[in-house]
Formats: sequence, C-alpha cells, structure tokens
Amino acid sequence: MKIAILGFGTIGTGVYEIISTYKAKSLADVEVVKVLDLPQNKDKLDIITDNYDDILQDKSIDCVVETMGGLHPAYEFITAAMKAKKHVVTANKAVVAKYMEEFIALALENKVRFLFEASTGGGIPWIASLEKAKRVDDISELYGIFNGTSNYILDAMTNQGKDFDEVLKKAQELGYAEADPSADIDGYDVQNKVVISSAVAYNTKINMEDFPCYSLRTINSIDINYFKKLNRTIKYIGEAVVNHTGYEAYVMPNALANDTVEANVNSNFNIATLYGQSIGPLKFYGQGAGKLPTANAIVQDILDIQSPIGSLIDFSNKLAYQPTQENVYVIRSTNTVDMTNIETKEEFEGQTYYTTKPMVASTLVELVKSIDDSQAFVAKLAAFKG
Amino acid sequence: MKIAILGFGTIGTGVYEIISTYKAKSLADVEVVKVLDLPQNKDKLDIITDNYDDILQDKSIDCVVETMGGLHPAYEFITAAMKAKKHVVTANKAVVAKYMEEFIALALENKVRFLFEASTGGGIPWIASLEKAKRVDDISELYGIFNGTSNYILDAMTNQGKDFDEVLKKAQELGYAEADPSADIDGYDVQNKVVISSAVAYNTKINMEDFPCYSLRTINSIDINYFKKLNRTIKYIGEAVVNHTGYEAYVMPNALANDTVEANVNSNFNIATLYGQSIGPLKFYGQGAGKLPTANAIVQDILDIQSPIGSLIDFSNKLAYQPTQENVYVIRSTNTVDMTNIETKEEFEGQTYYTTKPMVASTLVELVKSIDDSQAFVAKLAAFKG
Repeated sequence: MKIAILGFGTIGTGVYEIISTYKAKSLADVEVVKVLDLPQNKDKLDIITDNYDDILQDKSIDCVVETMGGLHPAYEFITAAMKAKKHVVTANKAVVAKYMEEFIALALENKVRFLFEASTGGGIPWIASLEKAKRVDDISELYGIFNGTSNYILDAMTNQGKDFDEVLKKAQELGYAEADPSADIDGYDVQNKVVISSAVAYNTKINMEDFPCYSLRTINSIDINYFKKLNRTIKYIGEAVVNHTGYEAYVMPNALANDTVEANVNSNFNIATLYGQSIGPLKFYGQGAGKLPTANAIVQDILDIQSPIGSLIDFSNKLAYQPTQENVYVIRSTNTVDMTNIETKEEFEGQTYYTTKPMVASTLVELVKSIDDSQAFVAKLAAFKG
Repeated sequence: MKIAILGFGTIGTGVYEIISTYKAKSLADVEVVKVLDLPQNKDKLDIITDNYDDILQDKSIDCVVETMGGLHPAYEFITAAMKAKKHVVTANKAVVAKYMEEFIALALENKVRFLFEASTGGGIPWIASLEKAKRVDDISELYGIFNGTSNYILDAMTNQGKDFDEVLKKAQELGYAEADPSADIDGYDVQNKVVISSAVAYNTKINMEDFPCYSLRTINSIDINYFKKLNRTIKYIGEAVVNHTGYEAYVMPNALANDTVEANVNSNFNIATLYGQSIGPLKFYGQGAGKLPTANAIVQDILDIQSPIGSLIDFSNKLAYQPTQENVYVIRSTNTVDMTNIETKEEFEGQTYYTTKPMVASTLVELVKSIDDSQAFVAKLAAFKG
C-alpha cells in the first residue's frame, strides 16, 4: 500500500513517523511515497512535493491521507483523489461533517474507500466501533466528551480552582487551544462530531443548525462551585438520540453526578458511549487529539482499507429534529426570567441560579431566548448511569 | 454462513435469538442450522440434535459456536470441529486460557479461524481492540475490572453499606453469582482473562500459577470504610505488564482514588485498559456478562471470520514472571506482622491495617505468607491515572 500525505504539520508528521519507524508486521507493506507541503518546506524531505498533480497522476499511490484541515482546498483535494481512484483517509472533521454525503457517494462510484476515524474522538476507535455495533444492533443513543481542549479547561477549573480565562490562556500556551478558541469552547467542533457520529450510527444526515448548542465560554468558577455543592461536575457533552418521531441532539454543558464515569474523565481525554439493543452501553475512552493518537487512528484506517467494515452509511434514514425527552436544566443569569417553567430560584455567592421544571429542549431554547443574556450559563442536569 | 451452536443455555439461546430475529443487513447471510443439546430438550426446537456427529459430518456447517463452558467435553468438541475444517467461536474462558496454544495451532493447520471475543469482557470488544491496537503499537500494559459478579458485590458494599455475605446471597438469588462463587470471588475467572488478554496483547503464554492472586472473599464492611476514609474505593483488578526482564501480573483488590474512572465503574459492568506506544491509554467499558451482551460478542466474532483481524497470536514472546514495579500495599490481619517493611500500622474500628513500604510483588507474597492468616485482606494502593 503506497500512501501520499497531504499536509505535513503535527498530524501529517505523526503519520509519517509511525509508518516509517514502527516495527509492527502489519505496517511492513505500507509506505509513504509522497508528501504535499508548501514550496518553502520542499527541502525537509526528498518525497515532498508542492504540486498535487504529482500525487494524482502517480498511479502507484493507492491512498491519499488528508491532514490539512479546513474546508478548502481539502474538499477539492479529497474529491480529486477519489476521482483518480485513490482511497482517502482524513482527520478533518469540518470537511467530513459538511460534505460526507457527497464523499461517500463518490467513494462508492469510484470503488474506493473513504475513512475518517481520526475525525471524531482522535485516537479512540469510535467510528469503527459504531460501524461494528450496527452490524448487529440498532443503535439508539450516543453521547460523549468529544473535545479535549474544553475538557482540559473544565478539569483545571474543577480540580485546581482556576478561572476560565486563566486556564484558556494556559491551554493556548501549551498548544491545546488555538489562538481563536471558538471551535473548541463555543461547540462547533463538537457539533461536527455529533453530525459525523450520527451519520455512522443512524444512517442519517442531521443538520447542526437544527439542534441547540450552548457555549462553554460563559462558565465561571462560581458556577463550578454551585454544582460542586450539588455533588455534580460540569462536562461539555454532545449527544444524539433517535426517538419515535425523529431524533434529538444537543451540545451543552452537563452537570453530571460526581460518581459517574464521565465526571471522572479528566485532562484532555475524551469518552464516547453508544447504546445498542443487545450490547447495552459501550464506552470508549482515550486521547481525543494529539499528534500520535490521531496519527494512530489514521494508520488504523489505512490498515482497514481491506476490511469489510467502514463507511457503511447509506443515509437512507431521514430523521427530523423532534425533541421529546423531558430534562431538567439549570440557568444562571442576571436578567429577568419568566418563572412559569422554573421549579426553584437560588442565590449562590452573588449569582442567581434557576432550575427548570422537566421540559423538552425546544422549550428550553425558547426560555433561554426570552432571557436574552449573552453571559447566561446553561447546563443540563444529566442522569447518565452506566 | 451456516452455524451450529453447542449448548443451548443462556448464551446459546442468546446467539440463536440475535441471529434469528435481528434485522441488521450483515446478519442476513448467517443462519443457525443445528443446535447440540441434551436428549430431553430435543423437542424444544426442530434443529436440536443430541449427537455431535450430526454437526461434524454436516459439510454445510461453516462454524461451530461453543457455549457449553467447562473444560470437557468443550476441549474435545472444539478440536474435533477444527479438524473437520469448521471455524470455532467460543465464550469459554477456562478452556481458552488452558488450551489456547493448541487451539490456535490447530486453527492454522486446518486453515480455519478460532475466535474468543466473548471469553473476556463479555460484550466489550476487548480482544478485537487488543488485536487492532497491536497492528500499530507495542502494547506495554493492560488492566481492568474483568469480573462483573465481584464488581456487583463491591458496589453494593460501597454504595449501600451492605456486608459481603448478604450481597453474595443476593447476587446468587439474582443469578449473577453461581452456587459455588469461587471462580468469581477467589480470582480464578480473572486469572483466565489476564492469561487470555496477555496472549493477545503480548504474543505470550503466561502461567497463572506464577503470578499472585488474592481473593476478594475476606473483605468486610470495615475494610470498605477504612479505604473510604482515605478517599479510595476497592475494585477487584487483574493486570499484566511487560517490563525489561519479562512480565508481571496479579489479580487482587485495588484501593483506587475515588476520582479515577475505574472507581466509578459500578454494578456488574467491566472496564479494560490497554497502553500502546502511540495511542496511549484506551479504555473499553460495557457489560462483562449476561445473555445478550455475551451473545453479541459471539455474533461479532462470526461476522469477523472473514476479517483479517483476529487470533494473530504466535506465542513467539517467551516471558518469565519477573516483578520489578514497586507498589504500596495495605494488609489487614489479626496475626503478628513482621514490621521490617511496614511503613505505618493503624487501628480502625477494631481492625489493624498495615501499610507497606514500596515493594515488588514477590516481597509482598513472602510477607503475606509469613503472616499466615487465611482471613487477611490484601489490597494494592493503586495510582492509575488516565
């Protein structure tokens, strides 16, 4: 199997390092023959080219690994590779979430594989596990901690008593968070991962504009202490569930009982859970990002090109966003709150917390809109058990 | 793919139920054509036979699923099936742990598959995940909660304040524990699973007589409270690690910090962790036993017969038991204890607890032998993080 890597940043060099230096027998037949990088980097390695046509027209190349990130030119490069009858493996969640229907149709048309394990959960074998579970079971629910940066921030706030801005700055210094941290802390990254996971689990394309996404950005250390008093820990959760009328999904902070598994997933680790009819809950925990874990997931995809599992998504399931589950939410705001659907109002260290009556997510969205407070903090009182 | 099931108890009927009634596309080509059961059950289903030769001589049968348990006649039936050129899938940890080298050699010789996902971790895709991880990484460590019955007992003691005998009786009434619970609470079940997991992870056959195994049977509610005071939770852990000189392994109660993932794995759930050089820690959580989860793992193996992954064990790695890690242990005993290697001695609710200096496992074994107290409780003060 001859590979070309597009992009030679952290992830691309990780893939090259594993394939070139690791000793596992299954890697013996895998070889990186070309790398696409910027002209100024051409001298770093003799297989680097700055001309994508060199890769497209090289008939010996079986598989293109896209590690550039972003929508463009990743989209154009991926489609061109499959049209040139090359398998594609990518870690790029944004481009997969946006164009997955087109990519999978193109893969079928050109009889190549399109694999994206590294796009969701980093090194965790989550996409392959969803594919495997649905060989037997109907999957009814998936949720998890899908973003390591926000989990690192929450861990430091919870266990070291630090405040949001201080921890974010530290995360940026350590390279865990981008200069513009919005994708990680405003939920866009998790939205992409919920869309991708739902496609694999439910054979459906859900639209991230349809379901609620509440930012983590407004959390402060008094919020952390308020939930500590309730023996709860805040985690930033994405979830998607199928129900009788369609599906429901969200991205938002959850206040989890301290004795749940998720409440004890710390640092920048991820955890993802699926529910199947015979298997019950399965949880998968590991590094959700980082050079070698993400590169490992890409290499696993390369080794799975010959496997019968993977990309078994036919998008045959047309599901509308129809929230039906009633949950209790906590809202912290300084604005006036309509008390009709509020169960309790509590003052704590100078802040006001409203706990709702059980309500469906669409009612929550209306309520939060009516409060009209960009600094409000919204969390679900979640009851994951097992 | 035509299947014969040997044994039609809980697991066998679960496999039949999934294959016959579930709607997943991948199951469309799988059919149960014969079931081996006792003569008195022949009228339950028209495909039941009490003569194993009916199955061995039926050339249409591709795969034999062994769900009888126990060493004999399971051993004879498994070897006969492979000699008759039939794939074998089994949930039987005792027979796999004892005869795996012979079974795998026989599978290679007869060009059939021998798969045993359900033998370890029940429904958790643990064996397949170890196989997959080692396609890329060297695995250096594995550990977990591998027995659901003992975890159910510990959860009830910890979170409901019950005593051991009361919970064991309840577990037996609910069918979680056998009339003779020794395999579950004295560690033989976990020993088998550590041997099987080590074979898959490390390509080695380790001998369960070589490494220490301390029973859970001596635990009482004062022990639980003693560790609660230290913010620790007792879990029954099996572990196997490779080191520079060989390997070390054990089965014993661990006192885990309350804020670890494992400390919050409750009820009869299992969790298993592997460490790989690029992937870091990966954890897998789910139902470690039960009709449908175990049957699901068997059906996954049936679907994996065509996969390139599985049973890639060559036993080329000859590892001797050579403990090198220094750990701290806590021993509760009423007998005299040699204080040479004891750091602290503490009285708590009428019981005496000795905390050792850091020591290798062979020193612990000598110390526990010298105390000569069949009612002693021994736990490792473990520091799993991530």
